[in-house]
Amino acid sequence: MTKVVSEGIGTFSQHYPRVATIVTAQAKGKANAMAVAWHLVISVNPPLYGVSIAPKRFTHQLIVDSKEFGVNFLPFEMTELVASVGGSSGREMDKFQEFNIALDKPVKTAVPILKDAYAAYECKLVDDKLYGDHRLFVGEIVAVHWLEEAFTPEGTLDLDKVSPALFLGQERYLTTAKDTVR
Amino acid sequence: MTKVVSEGIGTFSQHYPRVATIVTAQAKGKANAMAVAWHLVISVNPPLYGVSIAPKRFTHQLIVDSKEFGVNFLPFEMTELVASVGGSSGREMDKFQEFNIALDKPVKTAVPILKDAYAAYECKLVDDKLYGDHRLFVGEIVAVHWLEEAFTPEGTLDLDKVSPALFLGQERYLTTAKDTVR
Repeated sequence: MTKVVSEGIGTFSQHYPRVATIVTAQAKGKANAMAVAWHLVISVNPPLYGVSIAPKRFTHQLIVDSKEFGVNFLPFEMTELVASVGGSSGREMDKFQEFNIALDKPVKTAVPILKDAYAAYECKLVDDKLYGDHRLFVGEIVAVHWLEEAFTPEGTLDLDKVSPALFLGQERYLTTAKDTVR
Repeated sequence: MTKVVSEGIGTFSQHYPRVATIVTAQAKGKANAMAVAWHLVISVNPPLYGVSIAPKRFTHQLIVDSKEFGVNFLPFEMTELVASVGGSSGREMDKFQEFNIALDKPVKTAVPILKDAYAAYECKLVDDKLYGDHRLFVGEIVAVHWLEEAFTPEGTLDLDKVSPALFLGQERYLTTAKDTVR
């Protein structure tokens, strides 16, 4: 076993895999969807969720303008959609039309909610800050959409019902094993 | 298929699974390790990593005092250690001694680096902000430790060599499937 130590960074994709999400936003009659693997829950009360997005992204502008964003969690079967959404720009196309994305109605915001998501958060922006080459958007989760059968009574994902899409880096996706330990 | 929509939050653990990490810190002769699933990479250049930690945690004080933290990525075989570290407080014990945790030498900070981690980041604090009931610590990754065999030449985790520990919520852990798609 060889441990490598790199002062400074070298490659640093050791933090993968991460759940692959599709972040959505709309403003001024334009809407977009992008693939985001850099996200986290920050606080329970109030419920706050953070997503890190580069300023050059079209979705970045939509969130700045509307102060809202959606976080959609997709099953592994939808990996091709996640990759397609991730590999194209909303400046050049309407991804919802192009990729035939079915939508549910949001209830507390105007963000697009993906019908094929096993869960989705509607978030209202409470803070944002530029860190290096990305901006961290922090939103309060004001509504949650989820597929009832996809979760156990304890509130964890039921892996017999849903296989979450995970991003491994380098355009690779995978899902989880089925067995859990306590 | 029943879609549930909850205005406000209800349960919101739909964002799991997440890679289970052990975050480490030391200050004033005290060191600690805690289980953290709420973390993300925020920026590539400079390389910034964020962890969300409740102020009541002992590790929180150590990071505030030392302005450094470590993020250790553990294999699924070490789940019991992650759970033990997560279920105890460093105010009451020396977890490194109690759980017999072997350490590697840090190179750019003084944070404990776990020998059994397949990868670890040494981070120097660049910003922190209280969001709701947690504080987001943002650190620049100043050194990376990793097990060479655990990664492919492209820099992704080699799942034939390492099974990452993922947290599902409700004290449940799992790992990934082996197959990836592109």
